[in-house]
Amino acid sequence: MGSGRCAACRYLRRKCTDDCILSPYFPSNNPQRFVSVHRIYGASNVSKLLQRLPTHLRAEAADSLYYEAQCRLEDRVYGCVGLIFLLQQQIHAAESQLIKTQAEIAVMKSQVQHP
Amino acid sequence: MGSGRCAACRYLRRKCTDDCILSPYFPSNNPQRFVSVHRIYGASNVSKLLQRLPTHLRAEAADSLYYEAQCRLEDRVYGCVGLIFLLQQQIHAAESQLIKTQAEIAVMKSQVQHP
Repeated sequence: MGSGRCAACRYLRRKCTDDCILSPYFPSNNPQRFVSVHRIYGASNVSKLLQRLPTHLRAEAADSLYYEAQCRLEDRVYGCVGLIFLLQQQIHAAESQLIKTQAEIAVMKSQVQHP
Repeated sequence: MGSGRCAACRYLRRKCTDDCILSPYFPSNNPQRFVSVHRIYGASNVSKLLQRLPTHLRAEAADSLYYEAQCRLEDRVYGCVGLIFLLQQQIHAAESQLIKTQAEIAVMKSQVQHP
């Protein structure tokens, strides 16, 4: 049935069979989702990756592939590694502020004890 | 020259020409680097992505692709998105601790002012 094809089979202009590995994760109502992963990984690499996973983990894997593909389309140079750098900087900033604040507490404690 | 081929051309058993797009970023002394990105993205997707970038950004792009590919090989389900979740959790934990510590300071300040 042409109208029952998943987004991947529709995009690749092929028949969508009952055992289509992509169909549960790339529904026809969200064609952009497949286009994104296809542009970055290619349909065959995505299929292979999903096929090697147990069924119950495939939805999460498809989601994370889509997330990474979107990041790469938005930032061709760094992809989601750019986000990792940014988060690591935020952690360092929060940790530095925490150390500073804890030092402030130590000073205050000594003031409370020996005013 | 066979011995002058980059890791990509060596792996793909093809001639490495002077204008090989992959050769500057996949040197023959690190064959695993190419194998990783090839397994996740495929050589042709990596080439296309690098080709669309200005030359001075290609080394960083190749590094981030390699990083993401390594993450995906280590964690087939979440790839480096797993790391992003983890870092976000760490930020929330650090921020909560900071708010708690700042509240402690406020209490102490009031003790110093009105002992």
